[in-house]
Amino acid sequence: MKHNKEAVGVTRDQTIPNQTATTPRRGPPSISIERLIDRLTVLSQITATPGEGITRLAFSPEDKRGRELFITWLTSSDLSVREDQAGNIFGRAPGKDPGAAPMLLGSHLDTVPQGGAHDGALGCIAALEVLTVMSEAHLVPACPVDVVVWADEEGCRFGGGFLGSQIFTHTFPAESLARTDGEGVSYADALQSWGLDPLRVETSGTRTRGYLELHIEQGPTLERLGIPVGIVQGIVGMVGLELHLEGRAGHAGTTPMDARSDPLLAAAEIALACEAMAQVAGNDTVATVGTLRVEPGASNVIPGACDLSVDIRSGSEAGLQQAERGIRDAIDDVMQRRRIRGRVNETLRLPPIRLAPRMQDALSHACSRAGVPIHRMHSGAGHDAMILAHVTEAGMLFVRCRGGVSHNPAEYAAPEDIRTGTQILLDAVIQLTDAAPAL
Amino acid sequence: MKHNKEAVGVTRDQTIPNQTATTPRRGPPSISIERLIDRLTVLSQITATPGEGITRLAFSPEDKRGRELFITWLTSSDLSVREDQAGNIFGRAPGKDPGAAPMLLGSHLDTVPQGGAHDGALGCIAALEVLTVMSEAHLVPACPVDVVVWADEEGCRFGGGFLGSQIFTHTFPAESLARTDGEGVSYADALQSWGLDPLRVETSGTRTRGYLELHIEQGPTLERLGIPVGIVQGIVGMVGLELHLEGRAGHAGTTPMDARSDPLLAAAEIALACEAMAQVAGNDTVATVGTLRVEPGASNVIPGACDLSVDIRSGSEAGLQQAERGIRDAIDDVMQRRRIRGRVNETLRLPPIRLAPRMQDALSHACSRAGVPIHRMHSGAGHDAMILAHVTEAGMLFVRCRGGVSHNPAEYAAPEDIRTGTQILLDAVIQLTDAAPAL
Repeated sequence: MKHNKEAVGVTRDQTIPNQTATTPRRGPPSISIERLIDRLTVLSQITATPGEGITRLAFSPEDKRGRELFITWLTSSDLSVREDQAGNIFGRAPGKDPGAAPMLLGSHLDTVPQGGAHDGALGCIAALEVLTVMSEAHLVPACPVDVVVWADEEGCRFGGGFLGSQIFTHTFPAESLARTDGEGVSYADALQSWGLDPLRVETSGTRTRGYLELHIEQGPTLERLGIPVGIVQGIVGMVGLELHLEGRAGHAGTTPMDARSDPLLAAAEIALACEAMAQVAGNDTVATVGTLRVEPGASNVIPGACDLSVDIRSGSEAGLQQAERGIRDAIDDVMQRRRIRGRVNETLRLPPIRLAPRMQDALSHACSRAGVPIHRMHSGAGHDAMILAHVTEAGMLFVRCRGGVSHNPAEYAAPEDIRTGTQILLDAVIQLTDAAPAL
Repeated sequence: MKHNKEAVGVTRDQTIPNQTATTPRRGPPSISIERLIDRLTVLSQITATPGEGITRLAFSPEDKRGRELFITWLTSSDLSVREDQAGNIFGRAPGKDPGAAPMLLGSHLDTVPQGGAHDGALGCIAALEVLTVMSEAHLVPACPVDVVVWADEEGCRFGGGFLGSQIFTHTFPAESLARTDGEGVSYADALQSWGLDPLRVETSGTRTRGYLELHIEQGPTLERLGIPVGIVQGIVGMVGLELHLEGRAGHAGTTPMDARSDPLLAAAEIALACEAMAQVAGNDTVATVGTLRVEPGASNVIPGACDLSVDIRSGSEAGLQQAERGIRDAIDDVMQRRRIRGRVNETLRLPPIRLAPRMQDALSHACSRAGVPIHRMHSGAGHDAMILAHVTEAGMLFVRCRGGVSHNPAEYAAPEDIRTGTQILLDAVIQLTDAAPAL
């Protein structure tokens, strides 16, 4: 394998400003950005296709290679490693009270096809860095702390996503095990081929003291604000719709404008209504038409049918409802006005999730101590933290990423921002676990 | 081959009202609708795929089968048959002056894939019926009259269309012979395999007294007006554009509305502008977005690029120009406003064609004599008559078709309307050729 650093978006050799000068004397110990970037680089390179990003599809040989590497790091950091029947990996640092409910820190190692180096992997490696530095500084937490790698967060192979965290929190619908990938392999088969059986997972997330996840933002907001990190208040709620619109195909030259029932023009009005309704609902509400297919699709034929998707998200239930209502009204209106038949199927409905105030406060104190502006924000994307929030106090810290680009070989976060984020995560974990010097 | 009448859209056994009662005493002789429908049915059935319409792609074995059948009919009607080097078939009735420039009547026998029974074939069979009835009634035209079958009108195999009539009129670009079909066979090869060589065609259309074509309307206008036939004044002009729009793909959840450059929303505005500008240009101006493709095309990804086609048609040059200008202004405006890069390519530019007033007048007189309302209209589709109009006086008569449906197995024209149209064609031919009883 070629060691092509450009290809994986990680700059190991970049000069990183010495941070000792700016760390307050009474703050937490310093993380090693060199070690962290080195791990990120090695992980990326062993699963990279130079120029085409990084592909570690869940339960693939590449995923296995990445996991095995990560387990060697856990072991070499004196963490005790355990893998559950869903494929989630836990690396535990014992606390003063080994029987206490553990604090969890983590993210995921699987990627989308041709993804970037940071999505998921950064959160796992930052969590490991936190426990490594605490151990080196002889800081012992009151409770056990686990670095967690959630299995199959992306859901690219079997659909859905968040499978490991859903099984851990007992929120996974068992029938989803019958889902198959593009080659007809079921999720149950894939797990079994790795010796796993998710129906035998016993650990329930309810026995958890809390969960913290560091992740790149995957959006442009922090970059636009010029702030290195953001404290996630909640994950947006989502409504997904699939529309099938049927009009009447016809000859583009022989059918007068007033004799047409053109489903593409209906779709055009609906797409523009999505934009307008998201703007009316305000704040962080967004609505997107990402797919649109036209039948029969010839330049001289008026379309006869049109399929499109509508994706609506908002940090507030009220915003979500307002946008959805406005969009549905627009769909009804345009279908009637243009004599379009069809159907609207709901494909997804997730309420907004609020992350725990205690986690936000710990991150906020850490930001203050590090001299970083406190910026609270919603996550527009789903994360394992949203699943964990069903059973425990969950929190997230976003790290600025360049251009908001993610799920893409060009995905990039600056080492300085990664250091800032990991340092704040370390501070928050010390607070939340009452970590103190070993006697 | 199954004889499935439903499949080919022809109702041979349907009861047809006796028309003798309504024919004026001093009008032309009566055509035989039974013979005409019988021929239409047989031709359809020998090339039909039951339930999937009729496929006679140009220069295919099915096309050959249809042409050979048609030639047997020409021969049995005592017409002298000739095939030119482009594959056009001529069946001649001699006139009083055999050396005079001939009048041409015809259409085409090739079809689109899974097309209907009437598009093209009806015009050829109606032309043959006209000459057959004239012969039976001992009406001799002043000049020779040819039934013509133009080769490859549809252009489905090699693109372009109107190949036979273009070669006949010397308007065919010779470089088009290099065009290939889906299997890599060139147009030149296909012709050669039939023993043809279009570069050796000698007959020029300039030696023609005029051209008349009967064709189904392929649009809904006559049905909406409740009129069986329409006199074509001209063929609409056309402008074809292909647009490539590039914005910035992004995560549908993490990119605020005001940070987006969504090419699909630009395309939506452009499609609606096409509709509005065609309506503003008025009359018979139409504009259609028939194709639209979105990249990358995932429900949770803001589109990054969008390709679409724009097809503009109008019977008047002024209408065409007004609509095109309005649409191009809208494209410029929306691309600037939404920060979209891209390009607009012109794929087609054809001026409107006026058909000959003398042909329109002859058809108009015939309509009056038959007691049929005179309705003049533009053709929104291209026809061989538009090619012939470059070199001779050309005219067309449209026959109402059900729902305006064509290029489809459901294509249908009522026998009563076919009779009316063919009767009017006969009357017009008698006028135009000064046909008179043989002494």
